[in-house]
Amino acid sequence: MLSLPIQFSKLLKRFLLLTIFTLFTTLAHAEKVYKLKLAETWGPNFPIFGDASKNMATMAEKMSNGRLKIIIHSSNKHKSPFGIFDMVKSGQYDLGHSASYYWKGKVPATMYFTTMPFGMIASEQYAWFYHGGGMELMNELYGKYNLMSFPGGNTSNQMGGWFQKEINSVADLKGLKMRIPGFAGEVLAKLGAKPTNIPPGELYTSLERGTIDALEWVGPSLDLRMGFHKIAPFYYTGWHEPAAELQFLVNKKKFEKLPADLQEILRISMKASAFDMYIQSTHESAKNWSTMTSEYPNIKVKTFPKEVMTALQNANDTLLKEHAAADPFAAKVLKSQHAYLKQARQWTNMSDKAYLDSTAR
Amino acid sequence: MLSLPIQFSKLLKRFLLLTIFTLFTTLAHAEKVYKLKLAETWGPNFPIFGDASKNMATMAEKMSNGRLKIIIHSSNKHKSPFGIFDMVKSGQYDLGHSASYYWKGKVPATMYFTTMPFGMIASEQYAWFYHGGGMELMNELYGKYNLMSFPGGNTSNQMGGWFQKEINSVADLKGLKMRIPGFAGEVLAKLGAKPTNIPPGELYTSLERGTIDALEWVGPSLDLRMGFHKIAPFYYTGWHEPAAELQFLVNKKKFEKLPADLQEILRISMKASAFDMYIQSTHESAKNWSTMTSEYPNIKVKTFPKEVMTALQNANDTLLKEHAAADPFAAKVLKSQHAYLKQARQWTNMSDKAYLDSTAR
Repeated sequence: MLSLPIQFSKLLKRFLLLTIFTLFTTLAHAEKVYKLKLAETWGPNFPIFGDASKNMATMAEKMSNGRLKIIIHSSNKHKSPFGIFDMVKSGQYDLGHSASYYWKGKVPATMYFTTMPFGMIASEQYAWFYHGGGMELMNELYGKYNLMSFPGGNTSNQMGGWFQKEINSVADLKGLKMRIPGFAGEVLAKLGAKPTNIPPGELYTSLERGTIDALEWVGPSLDLRMGFHKIAPFYYTGWHEPAAELQFLVNKKKFEKLPADLQEILRISMKASAFDMYIQSTHESAKNWSTMTSEYPNIKVKTFPKEVMTALQNANDTLLKEHAAADPFAAKVLKSQHAYLKQARQWTNMSDKAYLDSTAR
Repeated sequence: MLSLPIQFSKLLKRFLLLTIFTLFTTLAHAEKVYKLKLAETWGPNFPIFGDASKNMATMAEKMSNGRLKIIIHSSNKHKSPFGIFDMVKSGQYDLGHSASYYWKGKVPATMYFTTMPFGMIASEQYAWFYHGGGMELMNELYGKYNLMSFPGGNTSNQMGGWFQKEINSVADLKGLKMRIPGFAGEVLAKLGAKPTNIPPGELYTSLERGTIDALEWVGPSLDLRMGFHKIAPFYYTGWHEPAAELQFLVNKKKFEKLPADLQEILRISMKASAFDMYIQSTHESAKNWSTMTSEYPNIKVKTFPKEVMTALQNANDTLLKEHAAADPFAAKVLKSQHAYLKQARQWTNMSDKAYLDSTAR
C-alpha cells in the first residue's frame, strides 16, 4: 500500500509540470505585448496630422487591452521627415504616417493616392478607395516594396492660397512667385508662374517681405496659426488638393507576423482615425475661419475666374497625359480615377451640391 | 525521513490545486465570450442599412478574437421594427440598429439626431456630433432611458422624391398626395399637401395607379430596386433629409458590464461601420444613378423653384419654433444645431461648394 502514494505522487508531478507548462504558454500567449514603432513626417505635437497617429495608437492599445502598443516617433526624433517610405520598407520602423505624394520622386504613381488637382472631393475619393478599386491599386503598387498603405486622414478641401494681388486673368499668373510644391506647382508653371518651395518657418516672412507673391498651405484648420491672414488680403478657393488624404504605411512582413485579431485592430484603428481626422479637419476649418473673419473682417474670399480655371484644367490634363504615356501603372490609376469621378460627381451634383445651391438663403 | 516526501506530496497537492484554479480562472477570463443580441428595424438582408450592423458585428468579433459575438435579429424575427427603443431599454435586447427619429412620438427631441430639413449635410453633421456637442446632447437625452446612442450610418443626401407632375409653384403643392412620413410631411402639410404613409410593398402600385401623386424613399442607392424610375418622370433634389444618420442603440447597463477592451471594440466598431455605410451609400447612389439613367435616359432631375423652397423653409422655421417653445430640451438641441450649421456652412461653401462650382466644365 505504500507504493501507491509514491506512484500517485509521480503521476502528480508529471501532471503538475504539464499544467504549469500549459499555464505559462496560455499566459504568454494572452499577454504577449506587440510593440510597433511608427515614424511620422510631422514634428512633435503637430496639430490634426499628429492627432491622427496618436488617436490611432490610443484606439489600438485600448481595444487590444494593452497587447498592441504603438510608439510614435516624430521628425525631431528620427530626423528624416521624408524618409518614412524607406524606413518602413526596410523595417527600421514598423509603421509610418505621412502622405503618399511625397514619394513621387521615388515611385511616380504613388502621387495619385493623396489627391489630384480637379480630382475627387473627400466623399467621392473615400468611395473610390473602398468601393471603386482604389485600395486594390494602392496596395498593388506599395506591395512591390514590402509595404501596405491605408488612408491616414483627410484635410478636407484645401484652399487655393493667400495672394497679395487679385488674379483676374492668366496673364496675372505670369512670373507670379508662389510657394506651391509638387504637382500643382508644375501645373502653375505651365501657365508661367514661378512655383517655389520654402521651409514652413520662413513662409510668413517671405510673404510679408514680398520674396513671394502668394502661397498655399492647407486651409483655415492649419493656416490660422501661421498668421497669413494678417498679411495677405485675398484667400483663393481651391483647385489643386480637393481631398488631400494622408497615409498610414505598414511594413508588410511585420503586419503578417501579428495575430489575426491584432491585424484587424490595427486595420480598423487606422480606418477610424482617418475618418476622425477628416471630421476634425472639417470642424477646425469652420471654427478657425470664424476666428479669422471675426479678427480680420476684410479678408476677401475669391475664386479664380473661369478663364484661369480652364487654363489650369488644360495644363493639368496635358501633364497627366504625359504621365500616363510614361508609366503604364499611372495610366491604369488615372483611368480608374477618371471613370470613378465621372460617375460619382453626377451624384454629388444632384445631392449635396443641388442641396447647397437650392437652400442658400 | 519518510515524513518529508509525505509533507512534500501534500505541498505538491496544494500547489497543484492552486495552479489548476489559476489556470482555469485565466482561461475563463481570456476566453469568456460575451454574446450581445441586436434587434434591427430592417428586414433580413435589407441592403446597406442591414450591411451596417453585419459589418459592425464582424469587426467586433474579429477584433475581440471571438470574445464579443453580436447576434442580429431582423424584424422578421422580433416582429417589432419600431419597438427597438423599448426592447433595448428593457434589456430584452442589448443593442439596436434603427433611426433616432422613429422615437419622436415617445421622446420628441430624439428626432433631431437623424437629420433635419434644411439642416446639416453629412460632413457638417458628423463634425457637430463629434466636435460640436452633438454626442453629448444625444446621450444626455438617451441616458434618461438607460440607453446610449451612437451614429449608425449615413444615407448621404436624400432625394426629394419621384413626382408625376412638375412642381412650378406653391399652388402645385395644394392637395398633392405624397408619401412622405414624419416631420417633413408636417412641413409639406403646412403648404397644403396631403402627406400619407404607405407600406413599402404598396408604394410602386400606389404611384403607378395614381393613388398618390408623388413619393420620397431614399435616393438612387435604395430607390433603384423599388423601380420608381420606370413610372414617374421627375426626380426632385432634396431638402428634407440632407444627412439621414441611422442609430446604434446600446443598453447602458449591459455596456457597463463589458470589460473595458470590449467596450472600446464595440464603440469603434459602431463608429467605423457608420462611416463605412456613409461611403457605401455614396458609392451605391452614384452607381445606381448611372444604371437608372442608362436604362431610362429621360428621367428629369428637377429642383423645386425658389418660391417653393422659401415657402418650405418658412414652414419648417414655424414648426421648429413651436417645438422649441413646447420642449426645453428641443430648444437646447435646435440652438446648438443652428449655431453649428451657421459656422460649418461657411466653410462648406468656400471649400467643397466653391470647388464644385468653379471646376464644373
